[in-house]
Amino acid sequence: MEYELLSKIKSPDDVKKLNDNEILLLCGEIRDCIVKTVSKNGGHLASNLGAVELTVALHRSFSSPDDAIIFDVGHQCYTHKLLTGRFEQFSSIRTENGLSGYMRPDESEHDPFITGHSSNSISAAYGIYRAKKLKGENGTAVAVIGDGAMTGGMAYEALNNAGSGRSNFIVVLNDNKMSISRNVGALARSLTKMRNKPHYHHFKFALSHFLLAIPLIGKPLNSAVYSLKESVKGLVYKNNIFTALGFNYLGPVDGHNVKAMEQLFKVAQTYSRPSLIHVITTKGKGYSYAESSPKSYHGVSPFDIDTGAAESGKTTYSDIAGSTLCSLAESDGKICAITAAMTSGTGLTEFAGRFKSRFFDVGIAEEHAVTFAAGLARGGMKPFFVVYSSFLQRGFDQVIHDIAIGGFPVRLLIDRAGIVGEDGETHQGLFDVAFLITVPGMTVYSPCYYKELRYDIKKAAESETFCAVRYPRGCEKQEPDADFSDDYTVFGGNGKKALVTYGRLFSNALDAKEKCPEITVIKLNKIYPLNDEFIKELEKYSEIHFFEEGIRNGGIAELTAARLLEDGFEGKYKIHAVDKFVPTAAVSDAIKNCGLDTESMIRAMAGDNNE
Amino acid sequence: MEYELLSKIKSPDDVKKLNDNEILLLCGEIRDCIVKTVSKNGGHLASNLGAVELTVALHRSFSSPDDAIIFDVGHQCYTHKLLTGRFEQFSSIRTENGLSGYMRPDESEHDPFITGHSSNSISAAYGIYRAKKLKGENGTAVAVIGDGAMTGGMAYEALNNAGSGRSNFIVVLNDNKMSISRNVGALARSLTKMRNKPHYHHFKFALSHFLLAIPLIGKPLNSAVYSLKESVKGLVYKNNIFTALGFNYLGPVDGHNVKAMEQLFKVAQTYSRPSLIHVITTKGKGYSYAESSPKSYHGVSPFDIDTGAAESGKTTYSDIAGSTLCSLAESDGKICAITAAMTSGTGLTEFAGRFKSRFFDVGIAEEHAVTFAAGLARGGMKPFFVVYSSFLQRGFDQVIHDIAIGGFPVRLLIDRAGIVGEDGETHQGLFDVAFLITVPGMTVYSPCYYKELRYDIKKAAESETFCAVRYPRGCEKQEPDADFSDDYTVFGGNGKKALVTYGRLFSNALDAKEKCPEITVIKLNKIYPLNDEFIKELEKYSEIHFFEEGIRNGGIAELTAARLLEDGFEGKYKIHAVDKFVPTAAVSDAIKNCGLDTESMIRAMAGDNNE
Repeated sequence: MEYELLSKIKSPDDVKKLNDNEILLLCGEIRDCIVKTVSKNGGHLASNLGAVELTVALHRSFSSPDDAIIFDVGHQCYTHKLLTGRFEQFSSIRTENGLSGYMRPDESEHDPFITGHSSNSISAAYGIYRAKKLKGENGTAVAVIGDGAMTGGMAYEALNNAGSGRSNFIVVLNDNKMSISRNVGALARSLTKMRNKPHYHHFKFALSHFLLAIPLIGKPLNSAVYSLKESVKGLVYKNNIFTALGFNYLGPVDGHNVKAMEQLFKVAQTYSRPSLIHVITTKGKGYSYAESSPKSYHGVSPFDIDTGAAESGKTTYSDIAGSTLCSLAESDGKICAITAAMTSGTGLTEFAGRFKSRFFDVGIAEEHAVTFAAGLARGGMKPFFVVYSSFLQRGFDQVIHDIAIGGFPVRLLIDRAGIVGEDGETHQGLFDVAFLITVPGMTVYSPCYYKELRYDIKKAAESETFCAVRYPRGCEKQEPDADFSDDYTVFGGNGKKALVTYGRLFSNALDAKEKCPEITVIKLNKIYPLNDEFIKELEKYSEIHFFEEGIRNGGIAELTAARLLEDGFEGKYKIHAVDKFVPTAAVSDAIKNCGLDTESMIRAMAGDNNE
Repeated sequence: MEYELLSKIKSPDDVKKLNDNEILLLCGEIRDCIVKTVSKNGGHLASNLGAVELTVALHRSFSSPDDAIIFDVGHQCYTHKLLTGRFEQFSSIRTENGLSGYMRPDESEHDPFITGHSSNSISAAYGIYRAKKLKGENGTAVAVIGDGAMTGGMAYEALNNAGSGRSNFIVVLNDNKMSISRNVGALARSLTKMRNKPHYHHFKFALSHFLLAIPLIGKPLNSAVYSLKESVKGLVYKNNIFTALGFNYLGPVDGHNVKAMEQLFKVAQTYSRPSLIHVITTKGKGYSYAESSPKSYHGVSPFDIDTGAAESGKTTYSDIAGSTLCSLAESDGKICAITAAMTSGTGLTEFAGRFKSRFFDVGIAEEHAVTFAAGLARGGMKPFFVVYSSFLQRGFDQVIHDIAIGGFPVRLLIDRAGIVGEDGETHQGLFDVAFLITVPGMTVYSPCYYKELRYDIKKAAESETFCAVRYPRGCEKQEPDADFSDDYTVFGGNGKKALVTYGRLFSNALDAKEKCPEITVIKLNKIYPLNDEFIKELEKYSEIHFFEEGIRNGGIAELTAARLLEDGFEGKYKIHAVDKFVPTAAVSDAIKNCGLDTESMIRAMAGDNNE
């Protein structure tokens, strides 16, 4: 058996039975299993390697599912999956019909809540905690949240709320000193100070030894609890940001010392005030390549274990967006770029290095990012907020209230727009079009290929009103031998049936047209507002199929339908779009599952009028 | 002249020229003017009365518009309006084509940003600040934010970002100890501690006297700045939540002592680190009724100045929602209610008193509120998050990610859905339908009258999936002599032309029908998902007019259009909805301006088919 100990862990109870030596061995097996699996499937590596001992300590100190443990974002829940009966399915992680890369309540009773988007764990765990108490149930709830996620405003809102009442609610701050890449903001500086207090080093070496006598399994004896509390007293700081928000602060504690963490987790359960336990971990721990370059190994594609080398990187839409911004910024000193902790993911690494004063990484703080951008625009700069589609959802109110009502020319560059693949439901970029076009005054571009993306970003830079350019994850399928225009372009066919689409799906449409040259393909570039000429063009056709890689309700296909119906169009019209949450699958498979691939297009266009 | 001093203030420069005695008199005139105007027009009273001296001190210490001053929410910007050239228009505040009740850049160069929604001021001001510095301009930016708004996560995100760099950026915490009503959460307790430090009282009485020698107009002398900084040193606390976020903390200072505040505002401009100045004010200051009952005088309708008595309150939709929740909670111990600092506004006062353990005021924290509710639902409770439509925009991502993907049966009660009237653009509840129906699995009810609202809330309580009930601000127009059903109801007519609508507009439709009995009125109650029978019913008509009190793009009228077109409907179809931001006007006037009143309905229905 490859994993002698790990393969025998069927539930957290089995973790509680291990002796010190077995714990060490188990952690080694877990690391090996994670590295091997991620090297095949891709996924979050460094964050998961950093949280191995922490997760073991949690499952030895708490009793999941009676105690609800929520891993914020879920970037670090692989060990949790391995210890809660999912070892045998683990090789399927991040594949279609396999395990999710995040927590999913429908996957296991040990996953109490949805994770994926940052900073929601404290709110969710506190809700579950209050429900337990209202129902008179035992157990507590634990939110495990990274220092990066702690920069999100939601986490603060939740601390402020949870810190105001009596409870033994627990927050574990998994401080790996870097969020996704380097941590930013003032909080990071405060955490550094806390880490460097002399307490920590004293504590790190002394506490676990001192406390080893206290029984770990079951409820500790009262006298033991008393002496534990007494011994910990000196570690409870009176004045820091967490105590200001009503929490006991315990730590910092070495996040790779299972015994030391166990003691703090035990004592926290005995308080009648909420506790925050500050755990220091090393991102990438135990895999040398990841430990020395945790940023590169945060979320990874499949790689070679021995060399750490990833598949050679192709140029992506993100790269094109980043390089276009750089070339614009060279000649225009007003161009600024803003990211919410996604410098590398959004292709801004070069910009960040070259235009330091005009680059702003604001932390995992999309709300602030949108309004800060609006402030920059109000002050006369030309800000681009570059953000993943699904994370922009966090800034929806700010887009309406702070950008659009004020009329400030902020440019949104929306990366990962459309299907994202392996990250699944929580990360699909399917809503941005529908919510952006509700906003009066908005202009939205959705280019298909790199040349067009560059063009659209330049248009956005020149624009005097707010606008958005959205583009998919990954690489251009091909550079089509096709022109584009600001608005829409018509491609051949016999003028009877029109296939209308925009963005990445245009590549599929061209493939469909190659096989069925009679189809007229109409491609939008500026998808909102709709051009009157576009509507008039559509009215020439007897049958229209609109393919949209986005949510159906409120999308461009529906908008077009309403315009056509009001205009008296009497032809056949059919919308092909997404009407559900789209689960994990490779991008091309998910697009096929949604009926948006070339074959689906050909089938739809071939159907007779009575279909 | 009624206001001898105030009437002569044409710009902030005039405020700088006043002597001590004149300052006192000016503050008195401002209070008188605010009380008289609000007694006629309604508006925010207590918060504005509390910020009179603070605003005078700001305009004496900074130079607007070169220094950008942003009042968070804008509940306290009336004095600012009076001191920045808008005295003569002040009587028009909160009326159609009059001054806005909030800050509006298109109203004055002294309003640097849009305000209305809470907690955005620090983000906006910091953006403006950074733009200034990038452009090499002088001046700073000041965010004036209340203790309530400080509970919003956005404010924290902005502090974390602004606190990380060198600047003389300034945040003024206007601590009136109560947010809109009583302040909640752990931060409130921390602020109480800060207020009660012995420093404060010492400082309050000594500082302004000590520092009076330092010139106020123009830049203070260097030696004066030095002694000022020295004297203030003892007031800079080392450890509180604001210092943890990278800010100098100055204060607390008496927010009704103009001289004392001026000195701190001056010294803050000389630092090379951002400062937070903690100002203590009394909400309602100077108007006895408001001072003793600030909660009742936060936002008010017209009232009698001598007695403080408001127009007698009629029962509102909010009242009905609150009482229905109470009656449900009596018999079902799982019903919980959550508010984001809007207990009274959302009709939850009775619930809060009677079901204390199941009532949660989480602060101005809509993001947390949504996810906390999802946690409660996950834990087996039946949570209702009761929230104004325009504020729910803040929780959009959480509705998708934490409620819908998880499938947790949270009930949203959406108050102020539709046109809200005097609060204008920032507060209109026009987006909720369009954004909610993009969310897979959502069910939305939009009742017209009280009986129906009660029914729908009961349906929501019984529902095992997530759902929303949305209802307008104010009072039922009439209880129509009309049935309703879960889905849709058809009212008479000759079966040729259908007027389709939902919510409050149904009253207008019935009025239209009374005058034109040939019209068939079709009323929706459950507006999403659409019932197939409803679509089939519509297909019987040759002409359909859909009236919707909401944004057009992505609304129910558009959704219906797409369904009809795909179904092959060949009749006439016309959408009457909102396609712009709707400015301040009485509700009925705004509805008329949007073409949704009875007369507009009659005109539309009378138009011939070639209209």
